[in-house]
Amino acid sequence: MKFKLNQHFFLACDASYEEADLVLWGAPFDSTTSFRPGTRFASAAIRNESWGLETYSPALDLDLTDYKICDIGDLELPFGVPEKVLDLVEERTRDILNDGKLPVMIGGEHLLTLAPVRACFHKYPDLYLIQFDAHTDLRDDYLGNKLSHAAVIKRCWDFMGDNAIAQFGIRSGLREEFAWAAEGHTYLQKFDFKGLQDLCIKLAQEQRPVYFTLDLDVLDPAVFPGTGTPEPGGVSFVELLKAVRYLSKLNIVGFDVNELSPHYDQSGASTAAAGKIIRELLLQFAESRRIKLNEK
Amino acid sequence: MKFKLNQHFFLACDASYEEADLVLWGAPFDSTTSFRPGTRFASAAIRNESWGLETYSPALDLDLTDYKICDIGDLELPFGVPEKVLDLVEERTRDILNDGKLPVMIGGEHLLTLAPVRACFHKYPDLYLIQFDAHTDLRDDYLGNKLSHAAVIKRCWDFMGDNAIAQFGIRSGLREEFAWAAEGHTYLQKFDFKGLQDLCIKLAQEQRPVYFTLDLDVLDPAVFPGTGTPEPGGVSFVELLKAVRYLSKLNIVGFDVNELSPHYDQSGASTAAAGKIIRELLLQFAESRRIKLNEK
Amino acid sequence: MKFKLNQHFFLACDASYEEADLVLWGAPFDSTTSFRPGTRFASAAIRNESWGLETYSPALDLDLTDYKICDIGDLELPFGVPEKVLDLVEERTRDILNDGKLPVMIGGEHLLTLAPVRACFHKYPDLYLIQFDAHTDLRDDYLGNKLSHAAVIKRCWDFMGDNAIAQFGIRSGLREEFAWAAEGHTYLQKFDFKGLQDLCIKLAQEQRPVYFTLDLDVLDPAVFPGTGTPEPGGVSFVELLKAVRYLSKLNIVGFDVNELSPHYDQSGASTAAAGKIIRELLLQFAESRRIKLNEK
Amino acid sequence: MKFKLNQHFFLACDASYEEADLVLWGAPFDSTTSFRPGTRFASAAIRNESWGLETYSPALDLDLTDYKICDIGDLELPFGVPEKVLDLVEERTRDILNDGKLPVMIGGEHLLTLAPVRACFHKYPDLYLIQFDAHTDLRDDYLGNKLSHAAVIKRCWDFMGDNAIAQFGIRSGLREEFAWAAEGHTYLQKFDFKGLQDLCIKLAQEQRPVYFTLDLDVLDPAVFPGTGTPEPGGVSFVELLKAVRYLSKLNIVGFDVNELSPHYDQSGASTAAAGKIIRELLLQFAESRRIKLNEK
Amino acid sequence: MKFKLNQHFFLACDASYEEADLVLWGAPFDSTTSFRPGTRFASAAIRNESWGLETYSPALDLDLTDYKICDIGDLELPFGVPEKVLDLVEERTRDILNDGKLPVMIGGEHLLTLAPVRACFHKYPDLYLIQFDAHTDLRDDYLGNKLSHAAVIKRCWDFMGDNAIAQFGIRSGLREEFAWAAEGHTYLQKFDFKGLQDLCIKLAQEQRPVYFTLDLDVLDPAVFPGTGTPEPGGVSFVELLKAVRYLSKLNIVGFDVNELSPHYDQSGASTAAAGKIIRELLLQFAESRRIKLNEK
Amino acid sequence: MKFKLNQHFFLACDASYEEADLVLWGAPFDSTTSFRPGTRFASAAIRNESWGLETYSPALDLDLTDYKICDIGDLELPFGVPEKVLDLVEERTRDILNDGKLPVMIGGEHLLTLAPVRACFHKYPDLYLIQFDAHTDLRDDYLGNKLSHAAVIKRCWDFMGDNAIAQFGIRSGLREEFAWAAEGHTYLQKFDFKGLQDLCIKLAQEQRPVYFTLDLDVLDPAVFPGTGTPEPGGVSFVELLKAVRYLSKLNIVGFDVNELSPHYDQSGASTAAAGKIIRELLLQFAESRRIKLNEK
Repeated sequence: MKFKLNQHFFLACDASYEEADLVLWGAPFDSTTSFRPGTRFASAAIRNESWGLETYSPALDLDLTDYKICDIGDLELPFGVPEKVLDLVEERTRDILNDGKLPVMIGGEHLLTLAPVRACFHKYPDLYLIQFDAHTDLRDDYLGNKLSHAAVIKRCWDFMGDNAIAQFGIRSGLREEFAWAAEGHTYLQKFDFKGLQDLCIKLAQEQRPVYFTLDLDVLDPAVFPGTGTPEPGGVSFVELLKAVRYLSKLNIVGFDVNELSPHYDQSGASTAAAGKIIRELLLQFAESRRIKLNEK
Repeated sequence: MKFKLNQHFFLACDASYEEADLVLWGAPFDSTTSFRPGTRFASAAIRNESWGLETYSPALDLDLTDYKICDIGDLELPFGVPEKVLDLVEERTRDILNDGKLPVMIGGEHLLTLAPVRACFHKYPDLYLIQFDAHTDLRDDYLGNKLSHAAVIKRCWDFMGDNAIAQFGIRSGLREEFAWAAEGHTYLQKFDFKGLQDLCIKLAQEQRPVYFTLDLDVLDPAVFPGTGTPEPGGVSFVELLKAVRYLSKLNIVGFDVNELSPHYDQSGASTAAAGKIIRELLLQFAESRRIKLNEK
Repeated sequence: MKFKLNQHFFLACDASYEEADLVLWGAPFDSTTSFRPGTRFASAAIRNESWGLETYSPALDLDLTDYKICDIGDLELPFGVPEKVLDLVEERTRDILNDGKLPVMIGGEHLLTLAPVRACFHKYPDLYLIQFDAHTDLRDDYLGNKLSHAAVIKRCWDFMGDNAIAQFGIRSGLREEFAWAAEGHTYLQKFDFKGLQDLCIKLAQEQRPVYFTLDLDVLDPAVFPGTGTPEPGGVSFVELLKAVRYLSKLNIVGFDVNELSPHYDQSGASTAAAGKIIRELLLQFAESRRIKLNEK
Repeated sequence: MKFKLNQHFFLACDASYEEADLVLWGAPFDSTTSFRPGTRFASAAIRNESWGLETYSPALDLDLTDYKICDIGDLELPFGVPEKVLDLVEERTRDILNDGKLPVMIGGEHLLTLAPVRACFHKYPDLYLIQFDAHTDLRDDYLGNKLSHAAVIKRCWDFMGDNAIAQFGIRSGLREEFAWAAEGHTYLQKFDFKGLQDLCIKLAQEQRPVYFTLDLDVLDPAVFPGTGTPEPGGVSFVELLKAVRYLSKLNIVGFDVNELSPHYDQSGASTAAAGKIIRELLLQFAESRRIKLNEK
Repeated sequence: MKFKLNQHFFLACDASYEEADLVLWGAPFDSTTSFRPGTRFASAAIRNESWGLETYSPALDLDLTDYKICDIGDLELPFGVPEKVLDLVEERTRDILNDGKLPVMIGGEHLLTLAPVRACFHKYPDLYLIQFDAHTDLRDDYLGNKLSHAAVIKRCWDFMGDNAIAQFGIRSGLREEFAWAAEGHTYLQKFDFKGLQDLCIKLAQEQRPVYFTLDLDVLDPAVFPGTGTPEPGGVSFVELLKAVRYLSKLNIVGFDVNELSPHYDQSGASTAAAGKIIRELLLQFAESRRIKLNEK
Repeated sequence: MKFKLNQHFFLACDASYEEADLVLWGAPFDSTTSFRPGTRFASAAIRNESWGLETYSPALDLDLTDYKICDIGDLELPFGVPEKVLDLVEERTRDILNDGKLPVMIGGEHLLTLAPVRACFHKYPDLYLIQFDAHTDLRDDYLGNKLSHAAVIKRCWDFMGDNAIAQFGIRSGLREEFAWAAEGHTYLQKFDFKGLQDLCIKLAQEQRPVYFTLDLDVLDPAVFPGTGTPEPGGVSFVELLKAVRYLSKLNIVGFDVNELSPHYDQSGASTAAAGKIIRELLLQFAESRRIKLNEK
């Protein structure tokens, strides 16, 4: 009998784990979110609503049905114990990396990024981190808590050190965070993507391994109201898409997309934006992997 | 690796089709809904939100993990062509009946009920239909359209005839519909469940095959606002549950639960009510099948 | 050409003003609402959503299509000038009364009730006022403002005096308001409708002219969340309907239904409740007028 | 007595049918919508909310009160039988065309466009179709259903053929649809309005009769979240307005505006956008008809 | 100058800490909530919306303005570190108890109850715990996490032991939890409040110190949809109020009200219900303390 | 004990009245709003949600913690009596001006602006008024009511006369209003901020006292849907911010920000936009006051 199951993978990402080049998972966790929670619902919403998306990108002229991508579903994560959650996610990312596949995470809160970055850093000690975000995420702690979404990039810096992190689109943070970045600890571009193209050219030449983390609140709340902390004055969807293209030549070793909180946008437009940018990222990086493999 | 996939079956209904005693499917279709649509989203919402439900019923002291139920997912149904949709659903129901399993449908709009009733009637020509509903659904047509949600019980009567249909909880309809029922074509109980217990005793004694259709708008909108046409003055959840218990001794050959339109209740309470009554129905009828099989 | 205009009258209330026995209008005004506004949207919402209601009442076995009721639409009322608004509404009510028709108002905020009560009192100096409400509405002023929704019954008392007002279902107010009522100025029944039946028998025997004002927040917020000040612990829809039946033998000279704030209930259930109770009231009082006329 | 009826025509479109130059109607139908329904509520919402719009356009320096436009209300359309609905709408459009008036439809789902296009094509066999849309709408069928919103332009092409259709703003569709268009069957401009001005100059010179269909989802979801399938990366309101100006010199013989699903944008901003663009289109085309008549 | 500050205490609870008999605080924390979060917003919402409540209870004929209650505001609690949060809340409760005042907490998630229960148990080793709840909360852990809202009563039992805990209104849980309770570890009353009155008479005679925890989801979702896990079939507001009256003679040493998640009920009715039950509890226990002090 | 009270002042505006240079208050009033009300909730929402904002502006490199600003809370304003409300607000503004502090009002509806403008004009008879708005607000009356939000700038003109008012971003109004402005009574710039920079240079040279009123609906509804009358085609947040910078050299003697209606944007993005623009305005004008004082 021909029955259609509930959409339980993103778009056409129905490859088996074994055959897949890219491996996608959801991380429904938001325990340290300090303002408005709900990013735990993001991965399920993105899969459900991907029904309204096409597999074909008119911009890239590429189609997801031509690539091997496996959506392995959501990790089952216990609430209230962030250390354990990070360990769980890091372990899974290491497995995927060891199997020679590209790890792709749909958050969840931004703290989760620490896990795949730790896993990638473990494999690639010269890892470079590119962050698109409205917020600095450079606090040392939040009410005494070191493992907070507001401190995640600082936690990455703890082991990555200077000259390893670039931040774009930043428009909110403490004065101290901006000052700390300005001391040279990170490359921090306020408001927009100036400098991104040059950076990407340089990183591509060096073939330096790069992890890309996309906090969707880099988008203006007009485009993306469905997030915990809307911060007016962000970039448009087209500007984001254009910035993302600069990354296509990089040696990307992992990426994540996070901070959709779908309940705060009942129109579904935010979920659609998240789904579409994920499709574009998957296509772009799947295609560049394909080219690279062919070149070998 | 241990990953949890998106919840793509209802609660613990993860038996294989082969081993299952009950077979559950979703029918995401609402093309003839005349007022507010959206029941197409019901089956997906009920599965997603079943995450907040337990498998155990304290009322029945039964647990879904003890039964073999298969949720085969949603039928893929084309919008705008009701005849074709009814044919598709009827065919699937016939297959399930032929395989000796109990068919269970989650609608969708109420017109869909016509399909499993046709299938059951084909197998059991002495079929009896019990309907819980706020609305008569006895129109002969709706703006000239014979296949309308407002005409579904009349369409069943077309082939079932008199003395085969009982309606409970009815509190809305045209004067003509009430008059037609009062001529003896159906047993129509206004507002509540009076007479249901006696009817069930009689039907159980006769071992007459019974199809049960539950239009959830029989519930008061206080309990169940998430429906297309809220009709104040309905029954409470506890009253519905009590009425449902009267059915437990019947020779049930199929049932459906329909008319949840989840977007109209953003609190999720309507979806939770739908999920819980489905759990109770599955447990009740799975247990009575188990008893019956043991008796043989 | 056969085109259906937007629903711009309530249900089947399409009689001409001249032929009508009952005249219905909307009063979209809520300038003195102190907490959450929005009752200005009630009459439009009730008309629009009346599309989902039937004209036939299974409870009364009466059908609106058998009566002459004219929905003359909404009064155009300026915001911010309550005195002027009350004068406008009073004047229109006087016209309707003078034309021998029963005036029926859909509010709007409760202050509006003052206008038809003044008009009816002018014609019937022995007028009696029956109020169903969650709130006492007996303040002498609100922040110095005499013309406030929280003072409307006190404003009626100003000219009606003692022994002319009965209040039912009351469950919120200042201690001083309850004390003032207890001095004998009004008959105030807390929480429910006890005493209503006896009162109605007495008033019916006296053939005393009665104005009925229904503040829908007398309903429990479970049934009727769409109101400015939800007050838990109210009556059910069935209890309200039963209470309303006691009024059927009265010499009703006008009535209103108010305080629906539809934006606060996106499920539409509150609007459906308002529409249904208006249908029942129209049928009940139209039928008793018909009987009375036939008796003459 | 001066009573204001519920707003039952759009803005100042209160001319009689006989005197009107433009005739406007609503088509509340969405039976073939495959993802999220609700466009059936669009015409009522646009009329209700037109209360917040002015009749004067500061951009055009024109005022609706200077033109004869008749809003004849909503067609009563049966759900679930698209063929019949299309016949009904086509027939009405033919009547309006035969009476020498400009037909203007507010949808409803995009499939409806097929009806007035058929009517216009019948009268003007050299008809040209200009579509603004996010989606190609060029499928041959959708789950076997030929009469689907996703196939509407293909259905128009069935009788209009090549060199008769131009599509702008397209950013979503199957690879096969883009490829089919690229074979020359339609002029398809991805993402924006490039080429529109040149096309309009050419069509104006030829005085070729043009039908214009505006699927509002050509707008970015930031501007217009209230639609069934939000597709990020669309045009701004100002860009749409500018594009629409290019059409002002055309020999327009009919137009429609569709795919507002108001329940998905509770802020009302999408409904306001729909209403404003309709006002601008009515003014623009009413004025060009006035000029043309004066020239004769 | 006379300016009204934003409402930053609950109703009239504006006594100073020193003079207060009851001390009220909010605990905006929900890090271990496994399904739908948002109880962190409860205390702020309840204070803001208390503006629509009166200080006078017509049921009790008592007025908050006659008692000394201090609302000390919200504790600042770090997300993601439950142990630390529990320590912080326990410490504050100990201070309040040591100062001879009655501690009253507005949650937040139910795990928080562990903190004041630990503090009260420390002072009163013969403490008895009465819980009104839809859920058993008797898991030993949740995904390996011992400090989970689903395990909070089990965590209390860890130190309180048998014969110290009574649970009412319970209608959801694992089969194992019900079985464990049935072994005599807690007194568990399914669905309703049967047995509560007898228990209260016995506890009052013994003058045994009692802590009362009210999980508002004991209410039916019709009354209280604004919660993380709506569980149909609960008690009505009037039934809850009546049950609460049985507690008035107890030696109450602390209480809390929790699990309002206000974003899930945009009508505000759930927040109003929470605020009203808190008012009734404050009045009832403040009055019984006043009587007790007078008796001494 | 360290407890955090509910956020009852905006961001870090916790200076005492005495020490403050700027004094901020909320004016929760919207009685004359003719379309959709709810601006009464703006000031409370902005304070509550300011929790998600930082005190530091990366654009200005200034931090609110460096300035003395006092948020004195909300004025308690009676609904339904606009004259009295305006008198109350005017009186408070005069007090603040007399104390040498800069008055800053958060509306509420736009009519309120009349009060501080009257107070400022009383002190500075050469006052100039700069308005950013989507609407002309130049009606002489609204349904006979002179004190209407739609007439507020006309009411200012009544005493300020010609050459004293500039309007920017205007895109809606009656033809008569635009014509009246074009006669030279106000400087009216349609759609955008052209001419603002030149005007500011001129006003700064003259050191003319300027009052600035910001109706937030000048923003496009994409950015700011949470308002009573969304008017498509407005400016972006970044364009508004840029325009606001032109005002930094002016001799500002008071300003207000109004027309947020938070219930119409459940995503919170509109409230975030309002809060952020208020922060930027406070920083900008506090800094220019600091510089001016230092220069003396």
